Amino acid sequence: MSAFDLVIRNARAVTAADQFDTDIGISGGRIVALGRQLAAGSQEIDAAGRYVTPGGIDAHCHFDQPTGDGSVMADDFVSGTRSAACGGTTTVIPFACQQKGQSLRAAVEDYHRRAAGKALIDYAFHMIVTDPTPQVLEEELPALIAEGLSSFKIYMTYDALKLDDRQMLETLAVARREGAMAMIHAENADCISWLTSKLIAAGHTAPRFHASSRPMLVEREATHRAISLAELVDVPVLIVHVSGREAMEQIRWAQGNGLRVYAETCPQYLFLSAEDLGCDDDFHGAKCICSPPPRDKANQTLIWEGLENGVFQVFSSDHAPFRFDGPDGKRVHGENASFDKIANGIPGVETRLALLWSEGVLAGRIEPQTFVELTATNPAKIYGLYPRKGSIAIGADADLVIWQEGDHVVSNAALHHNVDYTPYEGMRLRAWLALTLSRGEVVWDGQTPLAGAGRGEFLACERPRPALRRRRQEELAL
Amino acid sequence: MSAFDLVIRNARAVTAADQFDTDIGISGGRIVALGRQLAAGSQEIDAAGRYVTPGGIDAHCHFDQPTGDGSVMADDFVSGTRSAACGGTTTVIPFACQQKGQSLRAAVEDYHRRAAGKALIDYAFHMIVTDPTPQVLEEELPALIAEGLSSFKIYMTYDALKLDDRQMLETLAVARREGAMAMIHAENADCISWLTSKLIAAGHTAPRFHASSRPMLVEREATHRAISLAELVDVPVLIVHVSGREAMEQIRWAQGNGLRVYAETCPQYLFLSAEDLGCDDDFHGAKCICSPPPRDKANQTLIWEGLENGVFQVFSSDHAPFRFDGPDGKRVHGENASFDKIANGIPGVETRLALLWSEGVLAGRIEPQTFVELTATNPAKIYGLYPRKGSIAIGADADLVIWQEGDHVVSNAALHHNVDYTPYEGMRLRAWLALTLSRGEVVWDGQTPLAGAGRGEFLACERPRPALRRRRQEELAL
Amino acid sequence: MSAFDLVIRNARAVTAADQFDTDIGISGGRIVALGRQLAAGSQEIDAAGRYVTPGGIDAHCHFDQPTGDGSVMADDFVSGTRSAACGGTTTVIPFACQQKGQSLRAAVEDYHRRAAGKALIDYAFHMIVTDPTPQVLEEELPALIAEGLSSFKIYMTYDALKLDDRQMLETLAVARREGAMAMIHAENADCISWLTSKLIAAGHTAPRFHASSRPMLVEREATHRAISLAELVDVPVLIVHVSGREAMEQIRWAQGNGLRVYAETCPQYLFLSAEDLGCDDDFHGAKCICSPPPRDKANQTLIWEGLENGVFQVFSSDHAPFRFDGPDGKRVHGENASFDKIANGIPGVETRLALLWSEGVLAGRIEPQTFVELTATNPAKIYGLYPRKGSIAIGADADLVIWQEGDHVVSNAALHHNVDYTPYEGMRLRAWLALTLSRGEVVWDGQTPLAGAGRGEFLACERPRPALRRRRQEELAL
Amino acid sequence: MSAFDLVIRNARAVTAADQFDTDIGISGGRIVALGRQLAAGSQEIDAAGRYVTPGGIDAHCHFDQPTGDGSVMADDFVSGTRSAACGGTTTVIPFACQQKGQSLRAAVEDYHRRAAGKALIDYAFHMIVTDPTPQVLEEELPALIAEGLSSFKIYMTYDALKLDDRQMLETLAVARREGAMAMIHAENADCISWLTSKLIAAGHTAPRFHASSRPMLVEREATHRAISLAELVDVPVLIVHVSGREAMEQIRWAQGNGLRVYAETCPQYLFLSAEDLGCDDDFHGAKCICSPPPRDKANQTLIWEGLENGVFQVFSSDHAPFRFDGPDGKRVHGENASFDKIANGIPGVETRLALLWSEGVLAGRIEPQTFVELTATNPAKIYGLYPRKGSIAIGADADLVIWQEGDHVVSNAALHHNVDYTPYEGMRLRAWLALTLSRGEVVWDGQTPLAGAGRGEFLACERPRPALRRRRQEELAL
Repeated sequence: MSAFDLVIRNARAVTAADQFDTDIGISGGRIVALGRQLAAGSQEIDAAGRYVTPGGIDAHCHFDQPTGDGSVMADDFVSGTRSAACGGTTTVIPFACQQKGQSLRAAVEDYHRRAAGKALIDYAFHMIVTDPTPQVLEEELPALIAEGLSSFKIYMTYDALKLDDRQMLETLAVARREGAMAMIHAENADCISWLTSKLIAAGHTAPRFHASSRPMLVEREATHRAISLAELVDVPVLIVHVSGREAMEQIRWAQGNGLRVYAETCPQYLFLSAEDLGCDDDFHGAKCICSPPPRDKANQTLIWEGLENGVFQVFSSDHAPFRFDGPDGKRVHGENASFDKIANGIPGVETRLALLWSEGVLAGRIEPQTFVELTATNPAKIYGLYPRKGSIAIGADADLVIWQEGDHVVSNAALHHNVDYTPYEGMRLRAWLALTLSRGEVVWDGQTPLAGAGRGEFLACERPRPALRRRRQEELAL
Repeated sequence: MSAFDLVIRNARAVTAADQFDTDIGISGGRIVALGRQLAAGSQEIDAAGRYVTPGGIDAHCHFDQPTGDGSVMADDFVSGTRSAACGGTTTVIPFACQQKGQSLRAAVEDYHRRAAGKALIDYAFHMIVTDPTPQVLEEELPALIAEGLSSFKIYMTYDALKLDDRQMLETLAVARREGAMAMIHAENADCISWLTSKLIAAGHTAPRFHASSRPMLVEREATHRAISLAELVDVPVLIVHVSGREAMEQIRWAQGNGLRVYAETCPQYLFLSAEDLGCDDDFHGAKCICSPPPRDKANQTLIWEGLENGVFQVFSSDHAPFRFDGPDGKRVHGENASFDKIANGIPGVETRLALLWSEGVLAGRIEPQTFVELTATNPAKIYGLYPRKGSIAIGADADLVIWQEGDHVVSNAALHHNVDYTPYEGMRLRAWLALTLSRGEVVWDGQTPLAGAGRGEFLACERPRPALRRRRQEELAL
Repeated sequence: MSAFDLVIRNARAVTAADQFDTDIGISGGRIVALGRQLAAGSQEIDAAGRYVTPGGIDAHCHFDQPTGDGSVMADDFVSGTRSAACGGTTTVIPFACQQKGQSLRAAVEDYHRRAAGKALIDYAFHMIVTDPTPQVLEEELPALIAEGLSSFKIYMTYDALKLDDRQMLETLAVARREGAMAMIHAENADCISWLTSKLIAAGHTAPRFHASSRPMLVEREATHRAISLAELVDVPVLIVHVSGREAMEQIRWAQGNGLRVYAETCPQYLFLSAEDLGCDDDFHGAKCICSPPPRDKANQTLIWEGLENGVFQVFSSDHAPFRFDGPDGKRVHGENASFDKIANGIPGVETRLALLWSEGVLAGRIEPQTFVELTATNPAKIYGLYPRKGSIAIGADADLVIWQEGDHVVSNAALHHNVDYTPYEGMRLRAWLALTLSRGEVVWDGQTPLAGAGRGEFLACERPRPALRRRRQEELAL
Repeated sequence: MSAFDLVIRNARAVTAADQFDTDIGISGGRIVALGRQLAAGSQEIDAAGRYVTPGGIDAHCHFDQPTGDGSVMADDFVSGTRSAACGGTTTVIPFACQQKGQSLRAAVEDYHRRAAGKALIDYAFHMIVTDPTPQVLEEELPALIAEGLSSFKIYMTYDALKLDDRQMLETLAVARREGAMAMIHAENADCISWLTSKLIAAGHTAPRFHASSRPMLVEREATHRAISLAELVDVPVLIVHVSGREAMEQIRWAQGNGLRVYAETCPQYLFLSAEDLGCDDDFHGAKCICSPPPRDKANQTLIWEGLENGVFQVFSSDHAPFRFDGPDGKRVHGENASFDKIANGIPGVETRLALLWSEGVLAGRIEPQTFVELTATNPAKIYGLYPRKGSIAIGADADLVIWQEGDHVVSNAALHHNVDYTPYEGMRLRAWLALTLSRGEVVWDGQTPLAGAGRGEFLACERPRPALRRRRQEELAL
């Protein structure tokens, strides 16, 4: 009888703190032993001295999310989680989005139906609160948080989604009372709509004007405001998809003043720039339309610095699967469509980890431990999945990735999402994923996705563990 | 035959990233296995669900250091390392201090003789460079760094020790070329001597005027200057024993601008304040004379914040063992001695970890992982002892601490150093050390120091791994 | 025949730049000559070496302003301008306030009727834009600006007054296009209403909770937002009645980054503090209710610094004449009325200059020139009254003040407004006004107000001269 | 009999605060009357509506200053003040420079001899303290300050001139006690010498490496240190010739924290850049060698902003008259001379005002009042020449400039200094000086310098009037 279900031999294991050479013994889907000469496993995989990191947690991705306008995302939970798994991600946290007028619980139940029997890997849900009625604030949110949906996103822009400041305060007050984690999409809605109307009136409709309509100060203002509202309520918040210097300065200021403000950034702010939105007569720039828009090269450098100097805790994809062509695609309204009519978002769930491992770790910009912290351990802690997820540690789920160094050219043809392009087409990387394990099962062997739809489990999240910053002792004077 | 020399059962293990319940299998002085039901050990210790952390690394302590003026430190390597071990520290890095006119190698050899056959636990050496002759810069330093003395301290104050800016640049340039880590004592010597002469001329000689002679701006100025010199040379530096807001602002500014500036703080800046230097007719304030001096309570809060928000990477004791009474004591010149004649420094190697664990972790101010990062993992990485030291990981030395929660009152009578007081006398803590293991051997069992003099080994340090901040790609234009 | 209508002999004249001893020759209501031995005037006044400063411009005061809720301000243009004149102010700029739904022009015409035949001294109008309809933005505002109402205020709080961000952008865009000056009342409305509801729900209704309902961050957030919106539109703005550190930091940041952001503060932020709002059972604190509320003593010091180091350009009264007793008074709803039901604002048009001259200039905190700059020259330049108003210069209106040094105790009995209290009752000053001249006429002789109702003229303002900061060359990319 | 010695008719007079149209009546060399229709003068000049500004004060220029190495400056007091007068400057404040080992009084007496009978316009002296012996600190400095040399410069670089920090503190303490103004040349000497030795060792000797040897951080560090030392002593200081962003940030930080830190900049930081130091094989870049070196274009913009937003109080030339050719010229050691052997400094006393008037005022970057403040009023106040010098006011010396708008091309052939080049050769300006009056005498009529050598008077300076920032009330705890 074997001692373990599976043993990974000769791993160069990496946690958010450490690197060490070890075998990894797995039984019952969990890591049960670490050591150099573990007893035999029923199954054995030789990592041959290669890096083994915790499976990625993609804490910001969109699958099969109702859009409110009838359009449909290209990835459902099958293709979305398959793409994730092939990219080394073993847990996804997409968004159960309330429609205005809808009960939040109904939105969550609908989203459970969309995931059930489909997800290949484990998943949790963030909620998106768009209509904080007394019913939502007093009953639904507390109950849902208690049931394991312990985080929610608030939008400061998009008419169909955004809350005003009073609604934000009331919703943040629930987060404080119930111990939930609030995520904020910080862009000033009125600035964007005013600039958009000016641009379109001036005939500036090409994709690249999407960036002109959302300059950095629009993000900076909303970031400062979000921080202020959270400070008033005395609750931690996480600013999602931070794009560059101006928002970063606000966040670093808050962090330095003892506020529990966390921040996330995404591959598009490291690898894309406003130039990728193209010139006036090139509609292919639409492929890089996302919000906030990519900034300039100098800002890419600042984002890299922020990954190392502590501005950012989380690195997510913000995977938003809109095709370029087809009935729900970016080009559906033709190439003369003005930028504000183009589906907003880009795919990235499968490329997230390899981009950061290659250009961050292997290129010498960040340490392997920092990679693990940003892509797995911190998301697990912040969103209440730790210690089950997010590390290589005794008792944790055996969600693991084995890396294969060597030239790898990104090609959409080789990706597994249902989007017809990747913004990183042709990019030359130093490594790719050799193997992904989810709870001890191989779900990607470097060639083929192996998991069956429905094997992924829904994860009820604990109240977050804001382990990264101090806990304020004082209570609101109220 | 047992599988392991020693198994620690039921540990609540903590690393700089993780917490997990595990047994710890130890053989040959190293951690060789982690898992929940490890096979038997020749020896077994039941941790009974208690926290187990990596043995502390005290990266800033002074033992048996020649002072140049003939006075003698109260702790040699026997009493110093015994005190450390009883306080949970398993590695110390005291200073081999060059006297002006002396060869650096001679200073190191002398210090080896002082340690040999005495240390109870493992030790490495920092050097102190006080006389950077061409011989030192071109031959001795590179050779000594290669031999495992990969860090050195530069003083910006004290006539017997300080370098001028040109000497600092030349010495930092060696650090850059050889990959060594430079530590800086940052206080402006001229400001201190000017203020001291003014104070004494005005008859302000009591111990508390020590603090008046070294206001925060004196530390801020030198910190800014040290950062600037390091920026010019493009080399990482670590600012030791940072005391409060003004220096912290300079450091955080540098860190946010992509400079590799690290910082250390010490228990005295969390738990003492200028008030502890006493009033005019109370010489007992001399017991709290150290440099920089403790500041006010508001600064204590800021130091706590800096431990969580990333300003500080290292938490050390700056143990400087001067007795209060006796022929080398603070009171040797009588109670009318002016403050500048009082031996400068306070003891703390044994209390460092318990103070931070009790008032930091157990009081809810910092996470257990942060404690480990500050007291073990980061010092190991920064000074080139990682991965042998600094974590609980496969292959690492079995340097471990088991904590015992429960009321504990600090009393010098119960400490093991050779100093006749502790500044923390009577302080009520939430925990103390139940057991210290050094390379798998119990050196403190909660009652009695068990290690024999001379069992400690000298550790040759690797070139530091500045894992915490980005690596600048650009070379000096030169 | 006399050479001049009036000669003031032996004046210690002060401008925003200079001090010099001179006679001042006045004819036709204007300053026509300066020199040491001017020829005779029909009338002569001996200033006897005393300071003579330009008559004050109070660029922020409220007289007879319709409140929308039927309540009536205690001062109309007769009592308001009489009080102003007796306090050394020779020009006031109160507010023609649009009611929502009302035409802006109608509001202005109504306000002209309220002033006509009443004002004792010269006056201009700011507008308050509360309902920026297309009619207002495209027709009324441009026409009114051209007619001499070249400044307007935008409120970010108060339901009856506030604009949302989109409305602010559209209104600021008019200011940019037409060259008008926008003033911003920067407090976050939603934060205030949320805190107010929480406080009242908790039974915290006493006057002092007015301050709790508007903490500094509420002002900081709105200040940052106002600056951001102005930056987007690329137009100067002036933040009114800044109360302390947090808003000041935003403003100084903007000024240091080349944005044309001006700021105003008021006596209440130098001389009152939150403590003056009283304790729970003392309703007299209602006398100091204004918005933003006074902060603590440390903030008073920072405001003083801001007057000297360039954060502030303008020092106004924000005179808001609500009585303590009587049918429109602060106590009309009884002493149990919750703080949000108390008329909001305090009187100060008569005490503004003497407070600053005494505690600023004579106490050595600011220079006499700075006093003139803040109280006369800068307001004149910023609001388009310069060079007719605001200085002692050839061709300027002979609006002058002669100071009388000597003990003076502030007493409401000796003031000339129609409010039944002053927050500065009993305060001991180092000087008071000996004489006020408006266009060469004595309107206050140190004992008696001498001007007749209706002698004041309406002043059409030029487009402002933002002389204090650089002019940005770039145009909006749009 | 005429009422006035001279009347300037129809002037557009500008002060640091105001602009107004006036005649200017002058008698006894002083301004005695301002008004629109002054009585007749013995002499009359029609300004015909042109701008008339106070004569410039050049508070930083070097004439006939002993260099210690035997080389001789090209301008003595005759050619230097003639050049100044032709450029609209009516007061110069060059430096009486102590040689190490020399008595300060001897240096001053020597410098008086150099000036006597030569200066065409009025002059005061700053001292340069290079050897602060007890004799100097306790006797000479107090006496000389009392005699009207109320300002002195401290160098932080140059072996022959620099003070160490202790000497700076002791010298600043005299400034505090005696009420003198200290000026600081802030560059870190050791950084410069280290970089210079590295550059030369690498064969980088061309003029452009002068800039490489003094990067901005070298200036930033010394600026921070100077501010810190001044803060410790609690005395105002003025940082001379600030070149760009990094030093500006330190100064603005200090000003915002209530410290009385003043700053000066010069034309070379607005109009030259490091590119003007040429390429490797072009020695003509030597013509732009000065310290600190000119920075890049982005820094020019920041300097312009600093002139408007209050970072800078003073705009001087730092005229350092070294010829390009000839026995004391920059090329004397040949074109292969390494950059550190080239005479350091550039001429500019005659071009200072026209450059700023043309490119500042007429190009719309700064207001005319700001020009007057920076070039005349502030220097007069800061260095104790006010109110005799620095403004257009009753009682002030009739030192005036009349401007002539129109194309003017800068040409060294048309300048009056004794240097054989100007760095601004060929620059096209919008105006030049039509006339300069010194104490009512025409010393430049737009064509010809008219003053005779020796008509200039030595000005004894009052203790400075630091009117621009707050006065700290607190005394040193000492």
